[in-house]
This record gives sequence, structure tokens and C-alpha cells, in this order.
Amino acid sequence: SAAGMNGNGPSKLVDPLEDPVPGLGTYEDFNTIDWVREKSKDRDRHREVRRRFFLKTLSRSHVSDAFSGWLLMLLVGLMSGALAGGIDIAAHWLTDMKDGVCLIGFWFNHEHCCWTSNETTFQERDRCPQWQSWGELITGTSEGAFAYVVNYLMYILWALLFSFLAVILVRAFAPYACGSGIPEIKTILSGFIIRGYLGKWTLIIKTITLVLAVSSGLSLGKEGPLVHVACCCANILCHLFTKYRKNEAKRREVLSAAAAVGVSVAFGAPIGGVLFSLEEVSYYFPLKTLWRSFFAALVAAFTLRSINPFGNSRLVLFYVEFHAPWHLVELAPFILLGIFGGLWGALFIRANIAWCKIRKSTRLGHYPVIEVLVVAALTALVAYPNSYTRMSGAELISELFNDCSLLDSSQLCGYKQVQPSPPSLADRPAGEGLYTALWQLALALVFKMMITVITFGMKVPSGLFIPSMAVGAIAGRLLGVGMEQLAYYNHDSFIFKGWCSPGADCITPGLYAMVGAAACLGGVTRMTVSLVVIMFELTGGLEYIVPLMAATMTSKWVADAFGREGIYEAHIRLNGYPFLEPKEEFDHSSLAVDVMRPRRSDPALAVLTQDGMTVGEVEALVESTHYSGFPVVVSPESQRLVGFVLRRDLLISIDNARKRQEGVVSASTVVFTEHALAQAADAPPPLRLRGIMDLSPFTVTDHTPMDITVDIFRKLGLRQCLVTHNGRLLGIITKKDILKHMAQIANRDPDSILFN
Amino acid sequence: SAAGMNGNGPSKLVDPLEDPVPGLGTYEDFNTIDWVREKSKDRDRHREVRRRFFLKTLSRSHVSDAFSGWLLMLLVGLMSGALAGGIDIAAHWLTDMKDGVCLIGFWFNHEHCCWTSNETTFQERDRCPQWQSWGELITGTSEGAFAYVVNYLMYILWALLFSFLAVILVRAFAPYACGSGIPEIKTILSGFIIRGYLGKWTLIIKTITLVLAVSSGLSLGKEGPLVHVACCCANILCHLFTKYRKNEAKRREVLSAAAAVGVSVAFGAPIGGVLFSLEEVSYYFPLKTLWRSFFAALVAAFTLRSINPFGNSRLVLFYVEFHAPWHLVELAPFILLGIFGGLWGALFIRANIAWCKIRKSTRLGHYPVIEVLVVAALTALVAYPNSYTRMSGAELISELFNDCSLLDSSQLCGYKQVQPSPPSLADRPAGEGLYTALWQLALALVFKMMITVITFGMKVPSGLFIPSMAVGAIAGRLLGVGMEQLAYYNHDSFIFKGWCSPGADCITPGLYAMVGAAACLGGVTRMTVSLVVIMFELTGGLEYIVPLMAATMTSKWVADAFGREGIYEAHIRLNGYPFLEPKEEFDHSSLAVDVMRPRRSDPALAVLTQDGMTVGEVEALVESTHYSGFPVVVSPESQRLVGFVLRRDLLISIDNARKRQEGVVSASTVVFTEHALAQAADAPPPLRLRGIMDLSPFTVTDHTPMDITVDIFRKLGLRQCLVTHNGRLLGIITKKDILKHMAQIANRDPDSILFN
Repeated sequence: SAAGMNGNGPSKLVDPLEDPVPGLGTYEDFNTIDWVREKSKDRDRHREVRRRFFLKTLSRSHVSDAFSGWLLMLLVGLMSGALAGGIDIAAHWLTDMKDGVCLIGFWFNHEHCCWTSNETTFQERDRCPQWQSWGELITGTSEGAFAYVVNYLMYILWALLFSFLAVILVRAFAPYACGSGIPEIKTILSGFIIRGYLGKWTLIIKTITLVLAVSSGLSLGKEGPLVHVACCCANILCHLFTKYRKNEAKRREVLSAAAAVGVSVAFGAPIGGVLFSLEEVSYYFPLKTLWRSFFAALVAAFTLRSINPFGNSRLVLFYVEFHAPWHLVELAPFILLGIFGGLWGALFIRANIAWCKIRKSTRLGHYPVIEVLVVAALTALVAYPNSYTRMSGAELISELFNDCSLLDSSQLCGYKQVQPSPPSLADRPAGEGLYTALWQLALALVFKMMITVITFGMKVPSGLFIPSMAVGAIAGRLLGVGMEQLAYYNHDSFIFKGWCSPGADCITPGLYAMVGAAACLGGVTRMTVSLVVIMFELTGGLEYIVPLMAATMTSKWVADAFGREGIYEAHIRLNGYPFLEPKEEFDHSSLAVDVMRPRRSDPALAVLTQDGMTVGEVEALVESTHYSGFPVVVSPESQRLVGFVLRRDLLISIDNARKRQEGVVSASTVVFTEHALAQAADAPPPLRLRGIMDLSPFTVTDHTPMDITVDIFRKLGLRQCLVTHNGRLLGIITKKDILKHMAQIANRDPDSILFN
Repeated sequence: SAAGMNGNGPSKLVDPLEDPVPGLGTYEDFNTIDWVREKSKDRDRHREVRRRFFLKTLSRSHVSDAFSGWLLMLLVGLMSGALAGGIDIAAHWLTDMKDGVCLIGFWFNHEHCCWTSNETTFQERDRCPQWQSWGELITGTSEGAFAYVVNYLMYILWALLFSFLAVILVRAFAPYACGSGIPEIKTILSGFIIRGYLGKWTLIIKTITLVLAVSSGLSLGKEGPLVHVACCCANILCHLFTKYRKNEAKRREVLSAAAAVGVSVAFGAPIGGVLFSLEEVSYYFPLKTLWRSFFAALVAAFTLRSINPFGNSRLVLFYVEFHAPWHLVELAPFILLGIFGGLWGALFIRANIAWCKIRKSTRLGHYPVIEVLVVAALTALVAYPNSYTRMSGAELISELFNDCSLLDSSQLCGYKQVQPSPPSLADRPAGEGLYTALWQLALALVFKMMITVITFGMKVPSGLFIPSMAVGAIAGRLLGVGMEQLAYYNHDSFIFKGWCSPGADCITPGLYAMVGAAACLGGVTRMTVSLVVIMFELTGGLEYIVPLMAATMTSKWVADAFGREGIYEAHIRLNGYPFLEPKEEFDHSSLAVDVMRPRRSDPALAVLTQDGMTVGEVEALVESTHYSGFPVVVSPESQRLVGFVLRRDLLISIDNARKRQEGVVSASTVVFTEHALAQAADAPPPLRLRGIMDLSPFTVTDHTPMDITVDIFRKLGLRQCLVTHNGRLLGIITKKDILKHMAQIANRDPDSILFN
């Protein structure tokens, strides 16, 4: 019967709710999981839970099983939101520490210090006697060259201290805490196993060092690492629920949701976060995950808001409100920004990868601490004199996005007031202040572009979102002010006539900054929909989607013309992770027979027979090869496929049998059939291993085009696939074979795929 | 070599850019496409285009090929946006026609008539002498019972006329134009072929009859049918591009985007539309489609806005702005609304399906025209006396969502003004007007709930979104006003203490209406993320996502407890379409061997041998069976699988060979091998058919659990899969077999799967 036949499969040996033979069905580090097996295991478990629920033999009910997923999402949201709030507050405080100290309590940051002290007016809220810069504290005056030099030196010293602590902590306790973590999370979500990458030590150290790294003034952001932090939270919380602890596929669903949570707390954009997870990092994203991600992202966003780290009860990181609509003519400069973003993205990826390769291959890689200190010192040295590089990346972007209001005292709003009667927001000629600001911004642009290339990839937590956006925002603001002045002085030219009359506020430089930021981020990461949605959530106006979309689209096209890979894919390839890119089409006409092993000149495939081998022969075969699995055939002559056995399961089972099972010796026959053959009376009892054999291995024929095979691998998440010809076993294709083949086609070194 | 072996596959016979033997590789009506083959065909075509691009032998370049997709999206967006605008304007005009006529030109609707006539104040803009109700026109006065009766009669007459025209046009010209179309579009997107369902006649007739049906006052909406209209546009525009005309899989990508466009223009919610397509209707939704859908949805939304059918330059259908935040305590009534929505959804689906079954099985189904007329008359008769049922569904929802402003003259805002000094928006006691409104709303609720059940499924275009939302909005508004009064009279109770002090505006009945609308729509359709995002786009405030989410989630859980199917899935099953639900997990422990044909008692599987059969034998075999494909084996004894041939391709090829190829007679051998066997000298030349054989048929072993098999079918979009045991062919599983098996498990009639 069906049930009887099923009972011969793995499900008989392994009760889905109990612990099987220890280690059976688990994976080793740096291996790829088998999605089909994991999902099937979960369905078995689910059926079992339901059966027991009906039999009332278990107190843990079906309902609690279904709700454990939602509870987990709630916890992930709460924990990530709280951590993100803590990081924000701590980073704010430490960043201000570089400037000075609060006399009424060193634990206040600049803003809180002045709030606490007395009721100052809105304009002067960041100037109060209680907050003293280091120069003021030491020299007694805030004026003069000496105070400036003291401030400058203290700024550099703090930067060095913070970055030193960050790199030392990372090296000493959690080497996985460095970088943005997104390339690795993409790889993990695609099924790879990196033990400890999402562990508690990584979480603790990454949280602390992220604060230090951001505060040190290095050109990096906290948005990418927040995704890593959220994934660590999710992975740790998974251990509370058996359902998720034991199943690698289920856990990856939770991690996908956690990636959404990370972006949600980074920008205050829950919908954008979910789309980011869907578009950029996830591999297997069923609809159930979509809904749960959305829930977790919302919980996290509201937790963060109730902590209120920005002190303005805003959900979003950069809140912008524009007053003027945009005109169709402005699409031209927006597309120009898209081209700039694409070029910068392509250039950045090339330069950064080249620099990382230098780091890997030369002696530079041996001194990560010194590297970080040198870059931090250089950054602080160059950044301090220019107010736009001295402020943090997020502050800079916020200022650049901002539309000039009437009372704005910022240099960027240093326009000349033309008609003195009613002050208006109409386009005005640029004044002295604005020209200075433009020069400083231009210098900041050049500096940011260069320093980011060598910063990303150092051994500290470092995100790319903020630096990329800063570069774009500066470029956008410069272009925006340029357009504004052009329009002001050329009201009558055919370009501006009809929509930009004198005295009208027709060009919003802040919008240009925003479009530029989106374009540069898009060029570097190749995000599209999620990027536009994140930006939409920042402004809240559907009006500005079109400029954002035009720029993002242009940026992606331009950048793709120079190379299809985004920065994360480039780093995945640099590190040699076995990642099968789901977006890229396999576009070559090879067949399965060209990719499979053994090649024509190789020795024949190592196979087991279903009832003709002894334990000793099996052990010898396993010892003599390094394959992670072996096909089982009817007989060596027929080569008709019966099933597939994993090396790990085979070794554990034989080991287990030798220890526990009476009479199993090297001469025992290994039997994979349902019924053992009749044996001689004095022969040792056979070792029956049908239970660990996969009775439904995937097969393709030798004539299957590789594009179809790659599609099957991607969609089903296979580790290996057997190749047959007219019903006879011919060879095997693993994920690594496919990656090597793809590297070969692209004229790259196929041995760069390091793992698995 | 690899190329040589590939050359023996179908790609040799069929140049991907040229027309092959006519009909080869196409499908018959009511059949399912083979996704793998279609996608593979497109990749072949793409490779060919690229090769020719490099060889410069083709003027149509690679670039234009890549951009044709974007161009198509642009056209789909423009055309759908324009059509939606036209439908809005026409429906608005015809709806007003039921009330009266504009004296300065019958082509003006009520609002435009009064705009055109003179500058009236905002309050009185819908009262002007130029617009006369029918009663006023005929009796000369707008007062009195006679005028009322005339108005009443004219209302019913117009309703009958419009509904009669709608049903007659549908029956005469395009029977596929009836209903919402979403169940069929889901089926088509999953790979089924229904010729003419998305054709030009359907488009024209659906557009016209949709206007008539909406104007007739029947309880139906235009939102669902707009998805159908957008898909028709996309399908028709696909014919302009070879790439999409010839490939069923590529065309379905465009249709997925068109579904997003439909919702985008229906609600003015482009992001929600894309998520709707992803969550609710699409089957195969690669990331490329996500990005393109988003583009098309935006183009459509802005086209609609530039047509400006609502006359307020708003993008969204229901624009709402709330002033007061919500409090955590209010989650209780929101969840209550969720429970109501879920119960109503479950009840509606059962009642509607039961009614549709009655219609199918009794004589009622033979008189669709009379049915429509009776329902229209009944609707008009009951709806006219109650102002909330007399107005169109969209107007009703709009009014219910609205927050009461100070100058609002609507009955729903008929509060008593307590403190006369400064008029405020604080919670006030309900006045006479509000009590009347509440009674009318309660009656409207009962009426809408009943009439919608018999309306949905009639032979006119009918959408469900608006009626469902209306039911929920009424219930929500009633509860909201109730809560408001409760809070007003119980300021000091422990529930309201602390957050709702006297004189504060703490409860917003409009928000309750919105939450209720989302809950009911969620209960009926089981949408989740997309629904919340659509509602979010209407309000633009992230604040209100939490109430919406709580209600939608509750509603889905409650409704799922009564039955897992949404209304669209229920209608798919009712109509017996072969649709493999991607959301539902297959949760049964059967194996492939239990589902495959032939069953144990059946005759053996009909197979072809690779070189042992004559043309006559093959024809006899094909004639004697009705299978749509035949496996090819090495020999009847070995049963080792070589490939798979489709019935249609086989018949076309033999037919073609008999006509064109010299010497092919019934005695000719049919050869599927690469090299023909040596034959007797006087034997007729063999017919070589390796070219039409699929050399890479999908196989699973007999022990493969059905959950894995179902997963493979869904993810790869298979039509059939061969079953082997130890390398020998055992049987075949088709999509229909799986659907029948699933019906059997659910104790349903397996023969209800009609097609394919």
C-alpha cells in the first residue's frame, strides 16, 4: 500500500517531532542545504502535529504551532526595533562626543544638553553655555586659532580611538561582524551554511562596533549592518521554537523577513523594506513570508518610533516635504543625474573590487588594524575643515534634501533677497553664502567619492547606503542649484518660458538631491522598485515617484552597460561564495552532458549498488573519494538508478550500526532494497540502509539544455541532480559544477568558487 | 560535440526567428501551456537575436529587442489609463442621467452642468437651475409627491434600460465579457489557454457594458472588470511585437503587469496594484516583471490623472485625510470589524457559490436577460427611497470614509453643537440628522448584503471590490459613531479615561469605515499585503497601517476558519478550470505512484518505441487514445525512457510528411533515434521524427512524495511528468491527475475538473 511504501522512506526512521540518530539529516559548515528535503521534512512535521492534535496525544496544539510563526515575527520586530533605537541614540551621543562635552552630564548629547539646560529658541537650540567644545574647555575661549587646533586634534583623536576599538573588538571576538553583511546574508538565504555568522557574538559585537564605526566619522553608514543585526536577532530567536530551530528552510523564511525588518528600521520604510527583501536579498520568498515580513517590519518601525531616537516622533530617517511640483522639462536633469549615478555606481564597484583584491593579495591584508587607523586618521584630517564632511552622512543628506524655508539659516539657503517687501520662496539669485557652500560641497563630493572606495571592505561594520546616497545628494543639490540659477537668469529662454515665470518657486534643489541620492544608490546596488518605494515612503507623495523612477531606471541601465553585477554580487563573487544568482538568465546553449561529471576522460562515477556491496567496500569507496553523496544503482551493468545517499548520512549510519547493532562487521552486506536477498547461513546479518536513501533523487536527461537545468536548480533549490541517458545513470551535476561552468563561460577562473 | 547533439533537438527544425511548420509548437484552445518549453523557446530566440546582432545580418537590433518590453509597457499603461478615464467619465454621466438632465446640454453631468452655468459656492455646487430632475422637468416643480413618483419611475426605467443594454450586448457579441474576469485571468496566467477571452471584442463590449452596468445602479463595481480590460489591452498590444505574440510565457509576463495596471487605475494605487498582481493573480512573476509592472502602473495612473475624471486632480479614488490619531484601546473595535469582515466574507462566498450552483442547475440559468432585468428592477425599487443606497457605491464609500469637517452639511455629520462659542471638531452628541442617517445606513447594510449575493455572477460585467467595501464601510461607520457616542457619554469610565477627555476629538468614525471596508474586502478576496498597501496609498499616512493590518489579519483568519478559498478561487473551482493554487500547501502523504496513470487495474501505458513502429501503427495508436502526448521508449521490453512526443506535434508532422515528403507511406518506419537502423533495400524511406521529440522530459520516481511533485509542477509550470521505477518507465502524471487527486482528498467530485 501507499502508506507501507512510504514507511520505507526516511520518514520511518525519523519521527519528525523527535530527535533522530544524532546528526542524521543535518549539514556541515560551508555546505549548501537541500531545499526540497527541508521543505518536505517540515511538511512531514506539520502532518504529524496535525495528526497528534486530532488524537489529543500532545499538549502543544496545532494552533500554537501555527501562531509560533507570528509570535516569532513579533519578537524579531520588537528586538530589532529596540536595538536600532539603541544604536541610533548611542551613535548620536558618541558622534557629538568628538566635538565637545556637556557640562551638566557627559551622558547628554549636544541637542539634549541644550534642551535640558534652558528654553532656547528654535534657532539657537544648538548653542548653549552648557555644551562646550573641547577647544573651549581647554583654552577657555571658543574663538581663535588655538581653540580650533585643539578641536581639530580632539576630533582626530576620538576618531582614532573609536575606530581602533571597533576594529580590535571585531578581530578579537567576532570576525564575522565586519562589512555590511548583505552579501553573506544573500548567500545564506540561498541555502549556504556559515555557522556563527548570525550568532549571538556576532550580534553583540556588531551592535557595539557599528556604533563605534559610525561615530568615528568614517565614510560608512549603519543601514546595511542593521540588516545583519536584524538577521542575527531572528536567528537567535529561532532557537526558541523547535519548528524553526530544526528546519533550515523554515529558518530562512524568518531570515528573509528579518532583512525586511532591517531596512524598515534603517529608513522607517516598512513597505520598502519588504520589497527590498523580496527584490534584493531573498531567494525563496513564498507569499506567507511576504505577509509576515510586512507584519514584522511594521512592528519594528513602530517600536523604533516609540523609542524616538531622532527626537521628532517621525517614523522616517529623512523627512521631506516639498512645496512645488516638478515640470516635465526637469526630466532632462533628472535623467542626467541617473547617468551620473550609473557611472558612479559602475566606477565605484570596479574601484572597490580592485582595492579589495589588492588588500587580499598584498601585505596590506595582514595589517587590518593599521589600515583602519590610517583611513580613520585620513578621513578625520580631511573631513574636519569642511563642515559638509565633518557632519555625519545622515545629517548631510538630511540637510541636502531639505527645501529652503524662509527662516532657514543654513548656508545652502544663502540667497539674496531681491524684493524686500514680502519675503517669498520664489527663485532668487545665489548669494555669498550659497557660493561658499557650493564650493565646499564640490570638495566634499570629490572627497566622499574617493574615501568610500577604500573604506568599504575594511574590517569594521560598514554600510554603503548612506555614503552612496551622500555622493548622489551632493551632486543632485549642485545640479539643482545650478538649474535654479539658470532659470532665474533665463526666464525668457524657450526652456523655461511658460512654466517658470519670474517670482515663481519653480525649481526645488532638495528634490534634485533626493533624485541624485536614489540614482547613486541604484547605480551601486542595482535596486529598483524597492529603492523607489523607500524614497516614496520618505516623501509620502506619489508626485515625486516619476522623477525618482526615471533616475533609477537610467542609473540601472547605464550601470548595467558596464557590468551586470551590483556591489553585493561583486563581493559574493570576490569571496567565492556558491551563490546562484536568481536574476541573471543563463544564456548559453550547453547541455547537461557538457557540465556533468565525470567528464569523458575521467574515471567512471562512484556508485553504490543496491545489494551487492559489503560494509568494508562501501567504507573504502567513501574513503577514496570526497564526494558528498553517492547514487545507488540496481547493478553496475544496468546502471539503472535506485536512489541517492549522502556521504554524511552514510558515515553516521555505518558508525552508529557498528557501535549499536549486533553483528555488523566489514563483511556485512549493505542492503538498500526492501527485502534482502537470501544469504548463506553463516554470513553476518546485512546492514539495511534503505531508510537513509533518498528514493526520489532528481534526474535530468543528458540532452537537457543547461538553461532549463539551471532554472530547476534555482526554483527547487537543488544541491545536486543526476544525469541519465535512456534510463541509465550517466553522471551528476552539482551546484558547484554549474557555478564553475558559468565562470568558465564568463572567462573567469572556475576555481574561484571556494566552498561546497 | 555539444552543438551537434543540440542540433538534433527541436532547435534544428525550428529556427527561433522564423515560422516553423505551421502549428508546430502551438496549443489548442482549453489546453495548458508548457512553461519550460515556452521559456526555453524564448531563450533560444534571444540567443539567436544576439548572434545575428553580432553578425550584423539583421537590421532589427538587440537593443530594440530589449526595449520592446518597455515600449509595450508604456503602451499598455497609456491605453488602460485612457480607457479607465473614459469609463469613469461615461459612467458618471449615465449615472446622473438617471436623476435628471442638464438643460444647457444633455452631455453635461450634474456637476459639470452646475460648473458651467454659473459660479456657485462650494456648498451649493450641486444645486443649480440648469440641472433639472426628471420630476421637475415633467411636473414643473421639484416638490411634491407627484414629482417624487416621476423621479422614482424614471430612475427604475433608466436602470432597466441600462441593464438590458448591458446584458444584451454581452450575450450578442462577447459572452466572455461578463463577470469580473479575475478568476479566468488567474487561470490564464497559470498557463491555461482560453482563446478570445482577452480579445478585441471582449475589450470593446466589456468597456461599453461596464459603463452601462455600473450606471444601472446594480450592486457591482468597476474595479475587478478594469483588471480584465487592462489585460485585454495588453493582450491586443502584444500582437505588435513578435517576441510576445509568439511566446505564451512571455505574454503572460505582460498580462501580470496588466493586472497591476488594472488595480492601479481602479484605485490610483500603483504600488498596491503591483502587489495585488504579485499576491493575488500572478503565477509566474519574475523580478523583471515586478519592475515593469511598476512602470506600467505608474504610467497608467498618471494618464488617468491627466484625464482627471474625478475633477479634482487627485490620483486616488477615495482621498481621505484624518486629523486625529488612534489609540491602542481602539484596536478592540478594529478587531471586531475584522471578525465581522471575516464572517461576512465566508458567508458571502458560501451564499454566492450556492446561488451560482442553483443558477447553473435550474432553469434560472436559461434566462439570463430576465434575471438581470428582475435584479435591476428590484435593486432600483428598493434603493431609491434610501439616499445611501441611491447613490453609487463609490460615492457612498467616499462619504463614509470622510471625516466630518466643521462646514459639512452631510446628514452623517448631524451632531448637536454643545458649546456654542468656538465651533470645534471635538466629540459631540449625535443629533436628529445623525440618528436618521444611522437608521438608513443600517437598512442599506442589510440590503447591500443581500443584493450583492445574487448580483455577482450575473451575465453582466461586475466587480466585487466596491460592494464588499461598501458593506464594510457601513458597518464600520455605524460602529465608529457608536464608539464616539459611547466615549462622549462615558468620558470617565476606565476605558476612555486618560486618552479621551471631554472636548477632545478622539474617535474618527471615518477611520472605522475605512477599517471595516478593508476587513470586508479582505474577507471576500483574502488579499492581505496588497489590500493594506492600497488603503495606505489612499490615506498616505503610515499611522493608519496598524488598524488596517489588525483588521485585515483578523478577517483573513476568521474567514479561513470557514474555508480556505477566496471568492476567486471558489469561482475557479465552480467553473472547473485547471488551476493549481500556488498558495495552498499540498498536505497529504500520498506518493507519485498513487496518482499516476495507468492505475494498477488499467491497461498499460500507451508508448511509442524509438525505432520499431511504422507510421500506420503510430497513427492507429494515436487514434485509439485521447492522450495529448506519448512517451518514447527504447523497446517495449526494457521500458527505458528516451523522450516525449506531443500528440499535436506528432499528427501535424506525419500529416506534413505524407503531403510533402517523397515515399512516406503507412509502412514507413518512424524513427526517433539519431541514426536509423539498416533497412531492407525495398523498404520505404523512414520518417525521422527526432526533431519533434522532447529529449528532456521531466521524470520523478514512483516513491516521490506528492507534495514534492506538486511543488515541482507549480514552480516549473509543468503539464505532465513521467514516473519511473529503477530507471524504467512506469506511468505519467498530468496536471489534471493532480487536480483530480486533490479533489478526491477534499471529498469533492474529481470530475468537476472540466478542461484539459
